[in-house]
Amino acid sequence: MKPLTAGFVFMLAAFTVEAQDRIISPEVHADGTATFRIEAPKATEVLLAGDWMGGESKPMVRDDQGVWSVTVGPLNPGLAIYMFDVDGMKIVDPVNPLVKLRAHTAASLVDIPGNPPSLWQVRDVPHGEVAIVRAKSEVLGDTRAYRVYTPPGYYEQESTKNYPVLYLLHGNNGTEADWSEIGSANLIMDNLIAEGLAEPMIVVMPWCHAVPYFADRTNNLNLMERYLLEEVIPQVEKRFRVQSDRQHRAIIGFSMGGRQSTVIGIRNLDRFAYIGGMSTYPNGLEEYIVAMLDGNPEKLNSQLELLWFGCGRQDKFFDKNEELSTTLSKLGVNHTFYPTEGLHIYDLWRKHLVEVAPKLFR
Amino acid sequence: MKPLTAGFVFMLAAFTVEAQDRIISPEVHADGTATFRIEAPKATEVLLAGDWMGGESKPMVRDDQGVWSVTVGPLNPGLAIYMFDVDGMKIVDPVNPLVKLRAHTAASLVDIPGNPPSLWQVRDVPHGEVAIVRAKSEVLGDTRAYRVYTPPGYYEQESTKNYPVLYLLHGNNGTEADWSEIGSANLIMDNLIAEGLAEPMIVVMPWCHAVPYFADRTNNLNLMERYLLEEVIPQVEKRFRVQSDRQHRAIIGFSMGGRQSTVIGIRNLDRFAYIGGMSTYPNGLEEYIVAMLDGNPEKLNSQLELLWFGCGRQDKFFDKNEELSTTLSKLGVNHTFYPTEGLHIYDLWRKHLVEVAPKLFR
Repeated sequence: MKPLTAGFVFMLAAFTVEAQDRIISPEVHADGTATFRIEAPKATEVLLAGDWMGGESKPMVRDDQGVWSVTVGPLNPGLAIYMFDVDGMKIVDPVNPLVKLRAHTAASLVDIPGNPPSLWQVRDVPHGEVAIVRAKSEVLGDTRAYRVYTPPGYYEQESTKNYPVLYLLHGNNGTEADWSEIGSANLIMDNLIAEGLAEPMIVVMPWCHAVPYFADRTNNLNLMERYLLEEVIPQVEKRFRVQSDRQHRAIIGFSMGGRQSTVIGIRNLDRFAYIGGMSTYPNGLEEYIVAMLDGNPEKLNSQLELLWFGCGRQDKFFDKNEELSTTLSKLGVNHTFYPTEGLHIYDLWRKHLVEVAPKLFR
Repeated sequence: MKPLTAGFVFMLAAFTVEAQDRIISPEVHADGTATFRIEAPKATEVLLAGDWMGGESKPMVRDDQGVWSVTVGPLNPGLAIYMFDVDGMKIVDPVNPLVKLRAHTAASLVDIPGNPPSLWQVRDVPHGEVAIVRAKSEVLGDTRAYRVYTPPGYYEQESTKNYPVLYLLHGNNGTEADWSEIGSANLIMDNLIAEGLAEPMIVVMPWCHAVPYFADRTNNLNLMERYLLEEVIPQVEKRFRVQSDRQHRAIIGFSMGGRQSTVIGIRNLDRFAYIGGMSTYPNGLEEYIVAMLDGNPEKLNSQLELLWFGCGRQDKFFDKNEELSTTLSKLGVNHTFYPTEGLHIYDLWRKHLVEVAPKLFR
């Protein structure tokens, strides 16, 4: 055993401050640029990678104290994900407490303010609540949590109003915290409702890794479907005041969760009248829908109030999403395809939610 | 700009797996020992520091692939905090998604199962909910969240039961998520209630850094007092079904939060009948209480149902906590001092909550 430095004791027990702890990172400037710093005196190469860089990274520059830094941007308002590469070691920013919770690995977050605040940032409006609901799952064989956004006014005394429900799914390597902590779904709903742009609704955010992260995923979607239909939806409809008919139930997700939402939604049209996919992971999806339709678009057209797909043109999934839309059009399936500039990142999924939530339940 | 390695793209967007991502850390073994690993091929010295080590660290050993590892323990059941020191750089475990959210810096968590599960781990019992309540604070000039545990049964239809309320405060460099995510207060209450060991109660967990982490903290406690009394308590008592008299209101905290709970509690005896401090940060506390009493122990004895202090013998604050208890005894102030083996860590604060919660409201 070896005595700790004062700094290490601080990082654990947090009572003294030394040099490393005075480093500010990220430092967000008024113009939306941000400076990232890390103290790594013995490193030979340090890089910054951010989700806004589209697969590139930026070399950082060492000063004579061994602190590496780089300034980038301006960045879009909202939370962005980044990491450092220190001599090949990919790490979160050691001094930044904003961390993305994940199924595997961790990453740091930088919050770029908007002026005025964006629709996915805190505004001076009434705020809903986010409930962390924990329950044993017989289907999955574990005890896990899902999060439930309730809109402002839900808990007002004497309120007996029932609300429609959006089931909102995250992507690969996310958790049930993703949509509220990084996707800002709760703030987006607060702001859209305050502006009169969306119906007040409940938003349910489950954890979409039904099987452990490194396990065989073959059955993940099927287990998610059973978990949602047999456990989460009945529990939500018992616990919360909801409109429990299909006309008041929507399912939307991004990436892996977009494939889940689309397949689970289409397989259960008796449950969902609104289906959406953001930057949808397209593996097998077109084939599935084509086979399910069997040449008859009315199977979807007669039942769905909305079938919505959004994708960024800089996403590697863009071509497959566009192709899916083309095929649906050829088959006569009513749907909306919403292509914009954008990467496979939260910056786009927040904008997708701002775009699609106003189309639900009205 | 420089192209990213496949692994870095994975860490950001999470679609491929490479060598680093197959490293398992921590690997918890059946006997409660745990192996920690980090890939750092170019490093010359790598250390592990855990909160259970009491200010020491353990050298890690490099294999021929550049992966450093060490096995420690057995550790106590529950969540423990650790970090790596790579050539002086203090970092979280890059492959472990369990991260402690903080006011400043970040740390990793390891979860050691108990067999059977400890009172602070998931058991097969009814689970309460944790609500994340966000509200603008006029006192603090920001919009921030607090968390509110509601016990099982709270949301059962037709329930009109009112509950007592425990205000539970965290220590320095924590957040409002601390007590539920690491302190496991919600699981502890679930288990104690299921065993009939504690009254069903609401637990309110605010964020106790009233001023920014690096700001002048002189006024932090006074602002916390105003924030709690003028905003949090009235909001909680409007939103939740509570017993709102002082006999059904408790305030307890650990470390910085123990000083806050003790001072705020004693300054507001018209509000609180139960006051507790865990591993209390003692700065000025004894002097404050002695001055407040002015030789008359009845000021406290006649009003408090419980004045409780716990501290671990291996805590640097132990002597001052013991001295406080001795002084209170000399002055004739009824109180409980609960010294045990233990460091200044969550392992002890969970046990403190298990010890003190059954003494509340009964």
